[in-house]
Amino acid sequence: MQRYFLEEAYQPKERYEVQGEGYHHMVRVMRMVSGRQVYLVFTNQTTIIAEIIEISEHSVYLKEIGKEQQAKELPIQVTIASGYPKGDKMEFIAQKVTELGAHQFVGFPAQASVVKWDDKKLQKKQQRLEKIAQEAAEQSHRQVTPTITLFSSSQAFYQTLTQYDAILVAYEESAKQGEQSQLVQTLKRLPLGATLLVIFGPEGGLSQKEVTTLEAAGARLCGLGPRILRCETAPLYLLSAVSYQFELQ
Amino acid sequence: MQRYFLEEAYQPKERYEVQGEGYHHMVRVMRMVSGRQVYLVFTNQTTIIAEIIEISEHSVYLKEIGKEQQAKELPIQVTIASGYPKGDKMEFIAQKVTELGAHQFVGFPAQASVVKWDDKKLQKKQQRLEKIAQEAAEQSHRQVTPTITLFSSSQAFYQTLTQYDAILVAYEESAKQGEQSQLVQTLKRLPLGATLLVIFGPEGGLSQKEVTTLEAAGARLCGLGPRILRCETAPLYLLSAVSYQFELQ
Repeated sequence: MQRYFLEEAYQPKERYEVQGEGYHHMVRVMRMVSGRQVYLVFTNQTTIIAEIIEISEHSVYLKEIGKEQQAKELPIQVTIASGYPKGDKMEFIAQKVTELGAHQFVGFPAQASVVKWDDKKLQKKQQRLEKIAQEAAEQSHRQVTPTITLFSSSQAFYQTLTQYDAILVAYEESAKQGEQSQLVQTLKRLPLGATLLVIFGPEGGLSQKEVTTLEAAGARLCGLGPRILRCETAPLYLLSAVSYQFELQ
Repeated sequence: MQRYFLEEAYQPKERYEVQGEGYHHMVRVMRMVSGRQVYLVFTNQTTIIAEIIEISEHSVYLKEIGKEQQAKELPIQVTIASGYPKGDKMEFIAQKVTELGAHQFVGFPAQASVVKWDDKKLQKKQQRLEKIAQEAAEQSHRQVTPTITLFSSSQAFYQTLTQYDAILVAYEESAKQGEQSQLVQTLKRLPLGATLLVIFGPEGGLSQKEVTTLEAAGARLCGLGPRILRCETAPLYLLSAVSYQFELQ
């Protein structure tokens, strides 16, 4: 059943109205008619099953049939932060971390980042990533679309670090030294609803200076097993581990 | 430090010889000279640190300095089997499952597979995937390159099922019904060194008939959390979960 994300918080109503892109997709692309059921996903983690009752020239009207029962969101809110990687890897990471349940996806220029994006380019990139995340959220049956934030300086990113309950840095050197328990320890002590930021370097990794700065801000270094993961693979490992810890165990 | 995979089992020798592609890479690409150290990875899960002692016209000769101490391989041998997906997703999966520690990667034509590959095409595809796996194994510091097997019929694949200690099927319907414990239960009961086969459908998923056949062969159905993962993402979740369970906990 198709999912549509509305930009409003859920509140009980006699009927819900869908316009714009959602309208276009229902009526023009899917050729839906009255009686058809869809999911409507609201901004406050509520998803309802709704049935089309009327289609006008610019709006589809639906009534609530029931709530979606199963929780689709990770029990902790994970923010993935990536030092800007090369090529279209940001697009790849945005899609995959959305599928795997990230709450937020952040990009920042790390020292080893090769790409230099000015504000105009960043704005365009952000719009593109938001579209990719939206589509991935629909496809993977999310109840939240991750927010995307692209910072133009690492300083601006560092200023947000105090927002989180816990911060981890995926650090290749930790993996090489056989560090294996920090991730498990951190996940086990986080209460449901906690916010976790996990920071990943670009292809060249994070510099010693960046790691020192992050540690001073309260971050802990963690390994993700003994194999060296590419910068676009490590965030997927992390989110899979969070799901395994909180949703399967 | 660079890794080179040799097609021989390790046995103590006064000097080791590298020819062919390895020679080309060391001498022509990396312009290595005597005294330079590299990893030599043998077929029997032994990796040594070796130092170049002589370079001749077609061979590099090296002496052993020591063994690589850290185990890089998952403590259980995981085979990932994918119903042939569209486009170049097999290439993507081969690269990523190698990074994440798969022991073997298998492809088979599932009922919902759109692509039809004849024997010639399969042979070419296999060579390509082997090259990708080899490169990913080097990059991720593996001690084993996964074997690649592409079946031309699902029957031929089914005949191999008796080889494994345990078989799981990642089944979307299980995820939708909230099945959450089969993966954990299976991983917890597998002894070190056990062989686990995990089967994934193509984009359209596995059919009810395929699932019934696999269950009759001893496979168990498992969910991978409440979100619907794409066919190329689910194997990465699985291997990350295996690593988290066996290597980090």
